[in-house]
Amino acid sequence: MPDATPPMLIDGLQFCRWSRAVFEQMRQAGMSAVHVTVAYHETFRRTVEHIVDWNWRFRDHADLIVHARTADDIDRARATGRTAIVFGLQTPMPVEDDLGLVEVLHTLGIRFLQLTYNNQSLLGSGWMEATDGGITRMGRDVIAEMNRLGMVIDMSHAGERTTLEAIEISARPVAVSHANPSWWRGTKRNISQTVLKALAQSGGMLGLSLYPHHLPDGSDTSLESFCAMAAEAAAIVGVDRLGIGSDLCQDQPDAVVRWMREGRWTRPDPGAITFPPQPPWFRDNTDFPGLANGLREAGFGSDEVAGILGGNWYRFMREGFVPAHDDIRAAAPGLQGADARAPQRAVLHHHQQGIDT
Amino acid sequence: MPDATPPMLIDGLQFCRWSRAVFEQMRQAGMSAVHVTVAYHETFRRTVEHIVDWNWRFRDHADLIVHARTADDIDRARATGRTAIVFGLQTPMPVEDDLGLVEVLHTLGIRFLQLTYNNQSLLGSGWMEATDGGITRMGRDVIAEMNRLGMVIDMSHAGERTTLEAIEISARPVAVSHANPSWWRGTKRNISQTVLKALAQSGGMLGLSLYPHHLPDGSDTSLESFCAMAAEAAAIVGVDRLGIGSDLCQDQPDAVVRWMREGRWTRPDPGAITFPPQPPWFRDNTDFPGLANGLREAGFGSDEVAGILGGNWYRFMREGFVPAHDDIRAAAPGLQGADARAPQRAVLHHHQQGIDT
Repeated sequence: MPDATPPMLIDGLQFCRWSRAVFEQMRQAGMSAVHVTVAYHETFRRTVEHIVDWNWRFRDHADLIVHARTADDIDRARATGRTAIVFGLQTPMPVEDDLGLVEVLHTLGIRFLQLTYNNQSLLGSGWMEATDGGITRMGRDVIAEMNRLGMVIDMSHAGERTTLEAIEISARPVAVSHANPSWWRGTKRNISQTVLKALAQSGGMLGLSLYPHHLPDGSDTSLESFCAMAAEAAAIVGVDRLGIGSDLCQDQPDAVVRWMREGRWTRPDPGAITFPPQPPWFRDNTDFPGLANGLREAGFGSDEVAGILGGNWYRFMREGFVPAHDDIRAAAPGLQGADARAPQRAVLHHHQQGIDT
Repeated sequence: MPDATPPMLIDGLQFCRWSRAVFEQMRQAGMSAVHVTVAYHETFRRTVEHIVDWNWRFRDHADLIVHARTADDIDRARATGRTAIVFGLQTPMPVEDDLGLVEVLHTLGIRFLQLTYNNQSLLGSGWMEATDGGITRMGRDVIAEMNRLGMVIDMSHAGERTTLEAIEISARPVAVSHANPSWWRGTKRNISQTVLKALAQSGGMLGLSLYPHHLPDGSDTSLESFCAMAAEAAAIVGVDRLGIGSDLCQDQPDAVVRWMREGRWTRPDPGAITFPPQPPWFRDNTDFPGLANGLREAGFGSDEVAGILGGNWYRFMREGFVPAHDDIRAAAPGLQGADARAPQRAVLHHHQQGIDT
């Protein structure tokens, strides 16, 4: 048994080719929790196959990893020297066009859901679309349902208008689990000062990405530059609202990045897309604790570093995973506190718009 | 608030056309819990649609019904004047050919699963098949998985050999949720003395059916005859192992009984199959408490009547819904007690058979 409680280390997004070797590296690094992507463009049915695969992994590697549905599960994982795995989806395709699947997916453990992924979805616009139409009618209902259940709205890969509307409509803080400020690396995939400020006002979280396409010099970007950017971001969003969302895709073949980008919605373009090499200072989970040195040298205090590397995500997940105990079909009575406001607001708005149709 | 705790009333199987009117009758009768059929021949995906429908019902009728995943949930339902709804499946079609779907369905609330329904399934033989081949290879794995999770094996509609093998293979007691002894009504759909004795030895449960085709004189069968049969069955299975599984199909159109019998596996035979009328003394949930009078007149004591009308199912569910905390892939260490025996046994057997293939 360790003498002291190990530090809280949480990665806000990974999509590795999962193996015992990767889980052993998580333990070597002392990772408390990792938010893993369960599905991208999959239907509900195929997403369930991935969940089944995870359920077998939890039994085959029960000494290394444990499924986390609540922050208490993260505590239990730490107490037993294991890494908590938090499920998320990078597109709303698994919800299909059935609002009820949000609750079903929540019951199966999904705790993060991206409302869009690059393209237009049924819920909103991705950052690659020429026109960002904002949150759709179904999007409003899904936001209300996620608010009710305690499923975190993740706006990575979304368009700016869609992101700002999601923050406005949601009664609860929103996350951008893996992206960087666009002033550091100028791509619409990263986020603007406007979004960063709105995120801060709503009590949201930004997970800083270590994926080379989100870094100014790709794989050659230095740890010093990354940590200096973190200090600038902290000045806007608040040091308590910053975490890591590495976007680590360790051991994945290039066919997977093609799938992530192209799904099955376009004619396959074999060979055109490859995974970039990781920066040498962040190749796998064992490099995670080393980020602390860079952050300290960039001027962050020890408590601040601890927050960025895990404490902030932990607090956000503890608050974010609690159900709101209201009902989007129910009337006003019984609602308590700010968390119950927006589901009502969103649905009222939706119904008002539809009242004459 | 009532002065005393209401009696425990549990129906071991219903498949009504669910409506607020039916739920109100459940409350009028003071039903503590009802095991409801969620799906028959549906794929996993269509079963999830039915679960979504139930999730909306729980929100729309939260004053009358509540989803029960554990016996504690039944207690909570009683304490708040509502009826607990326990999910079950009448065929294993929703499991498809994926063992992992057993756990997924359990996570979504399924607590009873029939291994076969009239016909051959991937797991065993139904009572209508000319040849009963017993429990299949996949059937052994599913039994082990159900034992592990705390999902009740239900052998209603199964062939006799398949039923006896399930009782033998399962480490935990098995239920026949809705059937009658075949000496009372001679159909292979009902169960023999041999099955009844095996069920008793394993600590299983028999839910006595009120479906007219399971009664000797159909809709004209008297309450007296039913209760006299109960006394004979109690002498074999034990009065603690007897409950009610009414098979109530209230308000269902005849198309539904055709679906129950024919699914989509045969050419539809429209009009040939209709629901029989219920006996006048059991038409809906409000008639449930009245069964007590008949049972008392047949010689059962007050405690015995209370057991048959709910207490026995409650105790069985309390024991049956607890997970076994073992793992069909794990070796012997960590197993404790009789409940952990059979999953091991079943899988070892299975692996031995396959070792040279």
